[in-house]
Amino acid sequence: MTSEGITIRIAHPADAPGIARVLHEFNLEFATPSPGVDALTPRVAHLLSTDATFAVVAGDGPFLALALATLRRNVWFDGPVALLDELVVEPRLRGQGIGSRVLARFMVECHGRGVSLVEINVDEPDIDAQRFYRRHGFTDTEPDSTDRAFYFWQELD
Amino acid sequence: MTSEGITIRIAHPADAPGIARVLHEFNLEFATPSPGVDALTPRVAHLLSTDATFAVVAGDGPFLALALATLRRNVWFDGPVALLDELVVEPRLRGQGIGSRVLARFMVECHGRGVSLVEINVDEPDIDAQRFYRRHGFTDTEPDSTDRAFYFWQELD
Repeated sequence: MTSEGITIRIAHPADAPGIARVLHEFNLEFATPSPGVDALTPRVAHLLSTDATFAVVAGDGPFLALALATLRRNVWFDGPVALLDELVVEPRLRGQGIGSRVLARFMVECHGRGVSLVEINVDEPDIDAQRFYRRHGFTDTEPDSTDRAFYFWQELD
Repeated sequence: MTSEGITIRIAHPADAPGIARVLHEFNLEFATPSPGVDALTPRVAHLLSTDATFAVVAGDGPFLALALATLRRNVWFDGPVALLDELVVEPRLRGQGIGSRVLARFMVECHGRGVSLVEINVDEPDIDAQRFYRRHGFTDTEPDSTDRAFYFWQELD
């Protein structure tokens, strides 16, 4: 299977069950806890009906790839900041360019929404992903610096 | 000067000029570009009038410390995700516990707003800040893992 004939488009709220399935299966693959498809579906449907979230999906049946972004405001920029929460490609399709096509569609959508800054947190050992994002114009350092930044977090009850 | 007598409170939109001044001066200190107080003030005032942003300020005159957070949604959590964009303490007051007091007030506000996850990007060489956030319950690794994540970004025109 090649990626050329695969339809890539912006998701609608009605795509929520298929998106929830991709998110759930991706977490299972990496042994990350998931609330499950039934819990994710209404949340995805609600978020996609707002300006706070958008998604790019690939494929006409079960989705073969997905990019999911959430937007926020920031004092340093006029436009919104988009965080690419997830960029997922079906295992059997990896390494065939579909991730690049989905990311390209995602960036076009960011431009269309007036996004000022796109952010992604990439795991330290995932050198392939770091190379992928650098190739697509992302950086992990400030200009004129070699300092990177680590992502720190804390869940609240 | 000690930090005990300093008033710490949630900011109002009317605090925008003082907040803009702190943000601007902090960027000057670290030779980071700033759009300037006049450009920041209306943006801060607007954001503080929405649910998308809140700030904690310290001091009754010019602010001595500031925490600024922006909120977004996320499919993995019921509540909002708060990114701590800035935590700034006036240079002459550093190391006296005011940052901890401001962060504590910030976390109380996050609880009050039903925040599910708090995020911070911390510069790799800033070991003191990393220690500070670890001491306050933050982590840079997934559970059962030593993998950290790097912050990647790209500004759009």
